[in-house]
Order: sequence, then C-alpha cells, then structure tokens
Amino acid sequence: MAAGSLVKVGIVGGTGYTGVELLRLLAQHPNVQLRAITSRKEDGMPVADMYPSLRGKVDLRFQTPESAALDQCDVVFFATPHGVAMSQAQALLDKGVRIIDLAADFRLQDTAVFEQWYKMPHACPQILADSVYGLVELNRQRIAGAQVIGNPGCYPTTVILGLLPLLEGGRQLIDAGHVIADSKSGVSGAGRTASVGTLYSEAGDNFKAYGVAGHRHHPEISEQLDLIAGRKVGLTFVPHLVPMIRGMFSTLYARILPEAMNTDFQALYEQRYADEAFVDVMPAGSLPETRSVRAANTLRIAVHRPGNGDQLVVLVVQDNLVKGASGQAVQNMNLMFGLPEDAGLGAIAVLP
Amino acid sequence: MAAGSLVKVGIVGGTGYTGVELLRLLAQHPNVQLRAITSRKEDGMPVADMYPSLRGKVDLRFQTPESAALDQCDVVFFATPHGVAMSQAQALLDKGVRIIDLAADFRLQDTAVFEQWYKMPHACPQILADSVYGLVELNRQRIAGAQVIGNPGCYPTTVILGLLPLLEGGRQLIDAGHVIADSKSGVSGAGRTASVGTLYSEAGDNFKAYGVAGHRHHPEISEQLDLIAGRKVGLTFVPHLVPMIRGMFSTLYARILPEAMNTDFQALYEQRYADEAFVDVMPAGSLPETRSVRAANTLRIAVHRPGNGDQLVVLVVQDNLVKGASGQAVQNMNLMFGLPEDAGLGAIAVLP
Amino acid sequence: MAAGSLVKVGIVGGTGYTGVELLRLLAQHPNVQLRAITSRKEDGMPVADMYPSLRGKVDLRFQTPESAALDQCDVVFFATPHGVAMSQAQALLDKGVRIIDLAADFRLQDTAVFEQWYKMPHACPQILADSVYGLVELNRQRIAGAQVIGNPGCYPTTVILGLLPLLEGGRQLIDAGHVIADSKSGVSGAGRTASVGTLYSEAGDNFKAYGVAGHRHHPEISEQLDLIAGRKVGLTFVPHLVPMIRGMFSTLYARILPEAMNTDFQALYEQRYADEAFVDVMPAGSLPETRSVRAANTLRIAVHRPGNGDQLVVLVVQDNLVKGASGQAVQNMNLMFGLPEDAGLGAIAVLP
Amino acid sequence: MAAGSLVKVGIVGGTGYTGVELLRLLAQHPNVQLRAITSRKEDGMPVADMYPSLRGKVDLRFQTPESAALDQCDVVFFATPHGVAMSQAQALLDKGVRIIDLAADFRLQDTAVFEQWYKMPHACPQILADSVYGLVELNRQRIAGAQVIGNPGCYPTTVILGLLPLLEGGRQLIDAGHVIADSKSGVSGAGRTASVGTLYSEAGDNFKAYGVAGHRHHPEISEQLDLIAGRKVGLTFVPHLVPMIRGMFSTLYARILPEAMNTDFQALYEQRYADEAFVDVMPAGSLPETRSVRAANTLRIAVHRPGNGDQLVVLVVQDNLVKGASGQAVQNMNLMFGLPEDAGLGAIAVLP
Repeated sequence: MAAGSLVKVGIVGGTGYTGVELLRLLAQHPNVQLRAITSRKEDGMPVADMYPSLRGKVDLRFQTPESAALDQCDVVFFATPHGVAMSQAQALLDKGVRIIDLAADFRLQDTAVFEQWYKMPHACPQILADSVYGLVELNRQRIAGAQVIGNPGCYPTTVILGLLPLLEGGRQLIDAGHVIADSKSGVSGAGRTASVGTLYSEAGDNFKAYGVAGHRHHPEISEQLDLIAGRKVGLTFVPHLVPMIRGMFSTLYARILPEAMNTDFQALYEQRYADEAFVDVMPAGSLPETRSVRAANTLRIAVHRPGNGDQLVVLVVQDNLVKGASGQAVQNMNLMFGLPEDAGLGAIAVLP
Repeated sequence: MAAGSLVKVGIVGGTGYTGVELLRLLAQHPNVQLRAITSRKEDGMPVADMYPSLRGKVDLRFQTPESAALDQCDVVFFATPHGVAMSQAQALLDKGVRIIDLAADFRLQDTAVFEQWYKMPHACPQILADSVYGLVELNRQRIAGAQVIGNPGCYPTTVILGLLPLLEGGRQLIDAGHVIADSKSGVSGAGRTASVGTLYSEAGDNFKAYGVAGHRHHPEISEQLDLIAGRKVGLTFVPHLVPMIRGMFSTLYARILPEAMNTDFQALYEQRYADEAFVDVMPAGSLPETRSVRAANTLRIAVHRPGNGDQLVVLVVQDNLVKGASGQAVQNMNLMFGLPEDAGLGAIAVLP
Repeated sequence: MAAGSLVKVGIVGGTGYTGVELLRLLAQHPNVQLRAITSRKEDGMPVADMYPSLRGKVDLRFQTPESAALDQCDVVFFATPHGVAMSQAQALLDKGVRIIDLAADFRLQDTAVFEQWYKMPHACPQILADSVYGLVELNRQRIAGAQVIGNPGCYPTTVILGLLPLLEGGRQLIDAGHVIADSKSGVSGAGRTASVGTLYSEAGDNFKAYGVAGHRHHPEISEQLDLIAGRKVGLTFVPHLVPMIRGMFSTLYARILPEAMNTDFQALYEQRYADEAFVDVMPAGSLPETRSVRAANTLRIAVHRPGNGDQLVVLVVQDNLVKGASGQAVQNMNLMFGLPEDAGLGAIAVLP
Repeated sequence: MAAGSLVKVGIVGGTGYTGVELLRLLAQHPNVQLRAITSRKEDGMPVADMYPSLRGKVDLRFQTPESAALDQCDVVFFATPHGVAMSQAQALLDKGVRIIDLAADFRLQDTAVFEQWYKMPHACPQILADSVYGLVELNRQRIAGAQVIGNPGCYPTTVILGLLPLLEGGRQLIDAGHVIADSKSGVSGAGRTASVGTLYSEAGDNFKAYGVAGHRHHPEISEQLDLIAGRKVGLTFVPHLVPMIRGMFSTLYARILPEAMNTDFQALYEQRYADEAFVDVMPAGSLPETRSVRAANTLRIAVHRPGNGDQLVVLVVQDNLVKGASGQAVQNMNLMFGLPEDAGLGAIAVLP
C-alpha cells in the first residue's frame, strides 16, 4: 500500500456473527476504509438497524452483491455459508481483488475430502491450489503474497497451534498416532441461524458433546497436522458445547515418547511462539480461562505434565469469533497489505 | 371419577416446552393414565427420543391426531399454537371429552379482542362462551364443572393474582386507572420454536424489554382485571426478557388512594390466599426469588410499601412453565375430575 | 425396618448445597421422618427461611449438634466439610446410629493418602476400615450391611461407573496404564461457600480447567479403579468448570488393546448395567446432555468408538448434586434400611 | 496539558471490577501514562497475574499506597470501598493531585444523608462542598474545573439521564411526585468481593428484587433529581438482579400531566442529547438491549408512550462498569484535562 492510503474493504454476507465481528474490528481499524457490505435479504437496511451496537460507528447499508461494487475493493471478506466464496472468487480475482474466506471453501487442500464433508463439488480447484491456509503463525510468508486465503476454522486454530511445537521439524516427541483433542466451544460458534439446538432454553444450563462420530473440522485439522509433521497424525477429536457466548477451550492430550521424556516442553513452546504477537505461552502451571481473551485476538497456551509423567496436557483458549474467525481474518489482511500485523487488533480482552 | 380409577389423558402437540412439562407432571401423577400424545411431524418417534429426560419414564410414541384415539380420553390438553384447540374442540366435546387449552383460544371472552390480537376469527364462539378461564384461585367453582378450560397465560397469572386482593369485592384501595406491571420472563416462555431472537447468543448475557407497544397478554390481563374490579382498570404492562430458562417475576406498582392509607395490605393478601395451596404470601419484607419456585407449582407474593408511602409494590414469582402453564393446567384437571387439588403437584422446587 | 415404620433421619450441616438437596429429597421420601438438622451458625432459624423453596414443605429449624438428639436417629447424614464426620462417628455408632458421610472422611481407604490430600490425620482409622465406599452399583451387598458409608465424590462417580465395565473381572480390554478423564462440572460442585472464584461474574460466560496438577478426587478414583481392575490403573484426570449450576460431564478416553479390537463395547456396557435403576446406557451413537438428568438420580452413559478405531470414548452425565452427592446418599440409605432402592428417587429430570 | 504530554494517572484499589475496567480503558488511552496502582493486599504482584487479560498490555505491579508515589500523578482514581477516598483526599490535593472517586464519598452533597446511608461520618465536608458530581451531561462546565469528582453510581446514571429532559428548566410535564424507576443490574455491579448472594449458583438462572425497603443509590438519585427539577421529586426505586455479568436496564414510569399531553417527548429527548457523544436517543419505538452497549461507554434511551396515553415509559441501558462507572470516570478525566471528551472511549460494543 502507498503510505497513508487505506485498504478498501468489502464484506459479503455481513448478517452473521463473523460478519458483525468483522464490522466491529474493521470499523475501528486505522488503515481500512469499509466500502460495502452485502446481504441479499437485508438489501437497503442500515447495518446499525440490525446491530444497534454499531449505531454512530458504521453508516453502511446492506446491499445486494450486484450493487455493491465489490470489484472496486482491494480485498473482500466472505462471511458466508460454505460454497459462496468459491462461486464468486474468479470474478473478483479477475479484477485484482484479493479474497479472505471465513467459510471452508479454501481450507481443505484435498477436494475429495472437501466434497465428502461439505456435500458439494469444489467450484474452482485451480484457485484452491493457489490459495493459502490462513494460519499466520504457520504460513506467514505465503499469506503475505496470497491472492486467496482460506481462514482457518475455530477448532482447528486451537488444536493446530496447540500441537504445532510438538510435531513440526520432524520432531519425534509424542505418539503422533494417538493424539486427543477434547474441545469446548461457546454457542456463538454455531452462528446466528435460527435452530432449536442453539436456543437459550436448549443450550443454557447444559453441557453436551456433539459430532463425536465426525465433525467437519476434523479433516481440516488432520490435513494440517499431517503437513506439519510430515507424516500421518492420528487424532481423536471430541467437540463439546458450553453454555457461554464466546470462547473456545481445547484440552489436548499427547503421550510422550520414551526417548523424549527429558524434553523441556515449556521451553519448546515458549521458543516457538516467542515472536508471535497473538500467541501467549503462559508460565508453567498456568490455568488459562476463556474470558482472558474475550473479544481479543490473543490465543493463550499452557503446557502441563501432571506428575511429570508421560502424558502431556496442553490447554488452549481463544475467542472463537476473534482469533478463531474474524480477528484472524484481519490479521491475514494486515499481512497481505503490508500493514503492521497487529493493526486494529490491539484491544484488551473484556473481563469480567 | 370412580374411586381408584385413573383419568385417561391425551396431549395434542407434545413437542414444545409446555408439552414436555405436561409429560413430566402427568407421568408422575398418581391418578392419571397417559394415553396418547400427538405430533404430526414426529409421528412414530418415541417421546423419550426427543426428550431423553423421559427415558424409562414415558413409553409413549408421538402419533398423528387421527390415529391417537383422543376421543377415548377423559380430557385432552392442547399444548399447541393458537388456533388449534378451537378447531378440534367441538368434535371432542361431542364425544364427552373435556378440554384444557394451554394456548389462547379460550382465554379472551371478547371475540373481537381475540381476533384483533391473534389475527384469526374465532372458530367456535359458542364453546368459548361456555368455557371457563382457568385461574383456579379466581374461578374454582366454575372450573370444577367446566367442559372447556382456557388455561391462563404466564404473565396474566402473575399480574392477576398479584392485584386480585386490591381490586375484588368493589374495593376502593388503589388508583385503578394507573396500575403498572413491570414483568420479567425467562426465555422458555417464548417456546421451543427456532428463532433468532431466542438463540443463546442473542438472549444470553443480555436484558431487554419487548412488546412495549402491545403484547397479547395485555388484553387478557385487562379483561380479567375489569371483571374482578367491576370497573375499567388502566394497566401499563411492560414485559422484559431475562437470560434464564425458567422463571417469571412481576413487579407491580399501584398508587394507594388517600382514603385507603390505613389499610393493612399484608393482612389483606394473607387473608385472601390463606386457603390456597399454591399461592404463598410471604412475610412482610420478603424478597422472593424465581428459583424458589423452579419446577414447582407455587406462586409467591411479597407486599411492600416503601417508606410507608402511597406507593404499593407487589412482587410476584412463579415458574412460567409450571404455575404459569402446565402445572396450572394439571391443577385445573384435578378440580375438574374431583381429585385433590394438589395431586401430582407437590414436588419441592429445585434449588439451586 | 418394621413394615410401615419410618426411618428417622438427622442431617448434620444442612446449609450447603448437598444439605438442601438432601432436604429436598428426604422431605418427599415416603419412608423417612426428618428429625433434625444442625447448623451451629444458624441455630434457631427455620430451614425455610434460608431456603424459601422449602416453605410449607419443611418445618424444621436448624439446631446445634448438641441439642439435636441425633442419637435418636436411625441414620445421620453428614453434609459437612471434610473432617467433621470422623470426629463424631464413634459417639453415634455407640448409640446404634448409622452414618452416611457426603464428605471425604470415609472415601479413601488408605489413610496415608487421605492425610496427604486433606491435610489432617484421620481421626478413626478403625471405623474407616469397616466403612464401605457407597457406590451402589459397585458395592451393593456390602452397603446393605454397613454402619458407615463414605458417599463417593461427584467426579469419581462418573469416572468409575464410566470405566467399570472395561476393568472389572480382570478384563484385558484397554491400555489401563493410560486412561484419560476429561471432566466438566457445574459450579454448584464447589459448594455454597463465599469465594471469589465461583462468583457469577467470575465463573459466568467463562470456561477453564483447574486442578490439573492434582485434585482430591484423583486419588479416590485411582484407589477404586485399582481395586476394580486388580492392578494399577494409570489415570490422567483434568477437571473443568462449566458456567452452569448443576451437571457433570466426563469424557473418558481409553486405548483398546490389539487383542480386544473385536469387543462389542456397547453390549458390554448394556449387560453390566442392565439391572441398574439409575444407570442408563444409551443406544449406540447417543449424545447425552447434562440437562437430561437435571435434578434426577440417573447417570447416563454413551459408548463411542470413532471410526471404529482403537480409541474408545465414553460419555457420562449426571447431576452432581443428585447422583453425584445427595441422591446417591439416599440410594445408600434405602439399601441400608431395606427399602426399595428407588424410594424417594423416582422424580423425572427437569427439562428445559 | 501541554500538547503531546501525557496525563499521569494513579489508581488506588485496583483489584475490583471498576479497577480492572479502569486499567482496560486507561492502558489503551492515547493521552494517559499509567503510573501506579495500589493494593495493600497484593503488594508486589504483577497486575497481569491477577488479571491475565492484561498480559502483555499492563506491566505494572500492585504497590502499597505508601510506596506508590501517588503525589506525582496528575490525577488519582479511587476504585475503593466507600470511605477511603475521603480519608486520603486532602493530602493529595495539597500536592496538586486531582481526584476522581468511584465510590460514594463525593456523591451526596448532604453529609447527613451520607452518614445515614453509609454509616460513617464524612471526613472532609469542606472538600465535599467543593467537589462536583461527575455526571458529564449535567455538569460539564463544573467538571472541567473540578479538583475532586464524585463519580456517579451506576443506577443513578441511568435514572437521572433518563429523567433529565422531563424535569430540568422548571418544566411541568410529569407528575414529579410519583416517578417510578424499575431497574435491573448485572451481577458485576455487586463487585468482586466474595459473598454467598452473588455466587454463580445463587445468582445464576434466577431473578430477584432487592433493596426495596431502601438502597444507597436512592438518596443519590433523589438529591440530583431535586436539584435538576428545582423542587422535591418523589421516586419509587426498585432494583433487581439479573443473571448476566455486565449491563444495566432501567424502566422508568412517569405520569404525564394533563396540560402536557401534547408534548413531543421524542423530540424533547433528541434535542436534549443532540450534542452528547455518549447518550444515544434511539428512534421512536426502539427497544434497547444491554448487549448493544457491552464494554462501551454509550448509554441508550428509548422513549415510549403506550397507546398514546398518559403514561410515559423510558427505557435506558448502559454497561454498568463503563458508562455506569469506569468509562464515565475516564470521561470526567478527559474533561478535567482538556482532552477530547471521547479520548480512549471510542471502542464499539462487543456483540454478541
């Protein structure tokens, strides 16, 4: 970007939670000009009528995709259901518009796996092949030059960053064939679509597991872990639903290999993330809470080894709507446009 | 009922919250035989598959209304949307089946008001004219002989019982032209229908008013208050939504008339409800909590007069799904069939 | 008991959550006469003043232990901090009074372990040696004849019952050296003591792990698992705090041994618990929710084996205050006095 | 302040919720240098150890008041229990340090009323007489020149700003002798002190009124309303506790005088607050939600007149910790030091 110029940003599908969170972050971003936000259904409605939290802060109205002049943006975020971004990607790329998709269209490199889990053919395998998985701490260099970003899923962000130091560089530290991710998510992760299962009276004062037999984030995690480890990683993934709005917590279990029993895992994690602005490796013995990152882009990790035995327990927290979605998307945008990585992302977590 | 025989009960529309609450209460009722429960949509599904809380307790399956042999029941509860009970009432009455409707079809005596608020013509004004408003503490005698009961709305139950001692018998105690009901409801009052506004992420950690310009329970309350007072009562009614599942709280404000300043309001309430099993007038100065009646059929009242001035403040709590809906319906059934009024309704509130 | 006679019951320390839950259950128990409840601090206060949910249901007042005539009871429940029951046990036993302790005084058979974790010497190792660990499904026969019962901890109840079929009878089905229990508890498990960590504004809208380095329930679970398996079982136990009041969820992970890969685990669990009134093995593929047992004595189990691989995932839910505490205590009492095991414990869960 | 220089700030008593909220706001404030924060109890502890949300954002450690060099600050915030600020005020003023007290020491001008409600004599009536009640929208000019600010209570902020346009300027619009404020607060308003009543298991899934017989904010509201109206205003004030962390909602009821029935109340409110950055008068018919101001300094008002009758209903929402406490305190500081009134206070509300 030329010094002082603003990144012109469009958002497709701004009525859901990742959409309104993008609005919150981008409206306060010092280097961004919000140009357009689309919603076919709410065409003409001021954004602030749907989200009064934006009154006086965002003057945009929802527009149809056709009228929104997205092709005059520098970057378009897709906060849409799976399948939308891939159908519109080529037209935007032809106009030189870069794309950050918060859905799954550009997360899975293997189109067969995509089609198996999302029940639709991939519309643009060629673009997919050139896209980059937008986990900054893993792919920083490639993201900077990418035209299309597949923004990671919320669960995958916690699980991959929580296991990364154990697996990368061909390390032989844990039994990679039997890793367990026991993950817990706030209800906003299910989105703003009306459904019985996420009603207050159903999800409130209740705790349950779901997707034990298979969850779409499982193949996404596995694909990345395999790439990181350079071998097949065996993962058991059990997501749970927590009666809270924001927040995600993953408890990761890995068996330490006999030859790695002397490893200083605390140091391993601290060194890996020493230069990362948004990954906080807490002191040994820490117990992270989801509220410590509420509304912030930080992901916190604590490494435990109970009784100094052979079982490693890694605790990871993030705000699923920020580092797990819209905040990470903005972090990607910052990299793509040569902005400071933390531009617009410095807000302190809201506690209590 | 013959001694020892069981009341044969059917439920139409058992998939919502008042339906499952009826199941909970009736399955444990010593004088009831649950015969049928209908849901066109879930025909054939075991009730306990939808509500695992009933596993091992209720063996019924959902049936279509046609196959359910409702006409062999002694009484049928309608836990359905507005408009259903009135369309099926005549056929059941012809078979000698009595009806308790938990929706609004038989609450409003004035059909014009019904049609204004529920946007449908009333299907059976004649049956309506013979029906009884099922507020036991008000209409005990008439309920015992009724063929059709309009079970009161949740808000009306708290507001009417909270104001009753002030208005009945032609009493001139308060400025009846300017009564205020500031009411607060848990989210289950909105039912189990998928909607954005009652999602956990919308209703949680939030508080709001709604229906200030007009709420369907307003005319219901007004009609009853006018009848009780024998004159026109002016009511301002503001409902609010509380981030909790069960529970309803009404804060009632009434101006004491100059000539009534010496009234002992505490005594007035205690005497009025002295013989009521399910209305608990708490000691002077008490602060009732909704949790004190969670899952119980009790309604608690506390009478306050701050600074011994001219403003009366009456606090009323109930569980909106029990005394405010299904429990009150069972209380009506008990009366109608000559059972002890508290049969099946004695459970202690669940606290915490 | 003589036919028709009532068990005379005393409760020591009735002001906490397990105390009020005992009151709720016992006041509705058909075979019990509540004789006394003690609280030195609240001496003289009607129980229903502290817990308005009991108004009209329980007429007792709190008494000092000295004035409470506990020695005229058939059984005394201790709902007290650790250390109280063992200090009073001998005096009561001398009078022929049986004891059910809901704290930890009679849970751990190994007094050295007790002293390590509870930081106090055991006051009566001889009584401890004769006491029985009150997990009915494990020790039914011994409980019936016991004078002193150590009522299991809430977490142990879920973990032990969730692993029992895999370990008992010398079975070699799983890698017993590396079992994982990822457990989640509602906040009421922490009791009614004022503390910052369990304030609404701290525990609400938040999720965290705690006690990763060591939790008092860990040695209790381990002692029982070792006894059941007849060998040393290695357990990693990570408890978490959930923003809900009641409810406990344990996600258990066990690696299936190569020689046991053909085991029908669903059948194994169903057979083990076929005759248990309060353990519900759900159909294969089920996803239990804590609310399905809210306020009920049922514990539900679902057995999963994702991808038909070598990782077994067992999901267990209970209400921590009922099956995890007071309900289980009443179940023990029923056994001890020859009552039907489900007497007073038949209430259906409260949902929603 | 000299251009570019930073306001040097100290905080006394930073361990409670208003303290940590001050830290969140001030650490992000562009014109502030945080110099010291005191806690006698936590002396030496890094602030970020108590509040991990501040990790990497605030490097301060708690200090004793003696070691904190508060006298080198430009302004000191007191986020302490009532009684602390008035005991330290003179010493600071002598050094030229200005004071903003978030407790009640400088809220009530009438020391007799102060002593009646806070059960302590006022330590410095002279300073009190010179202090200013820090409701910016009421006292902007005086605040700019004040040495000592009494920052308003949370309830008073909503009630006073909600009634201000009706009463000021000698207006005769409502029956000022009978105003009702039915107010509802999230639990964080009760602070971070360990107490049974605000435990998660007590305050969760529950709704109750409290302080009906008298609440400390009542005289504070009354004193201000009397000053604004220039006559005695009669107020009934009933606060309630809502199971949410942040958020405050006041439903205000006022009877319109016969001669004022033609007033355009919507216009009255819009005009009064047209130039206020932090008071948002919503369009007619709006229904404000507390979440629309979560973590933001905005207070929203909606004016209703149901059925166009003689009863005015004013709905007011704020975040009790921001506009109701720490945000308003920063707004006061901005005025006192000639900074833009919204400096450091522009963050958008966090929704969902």
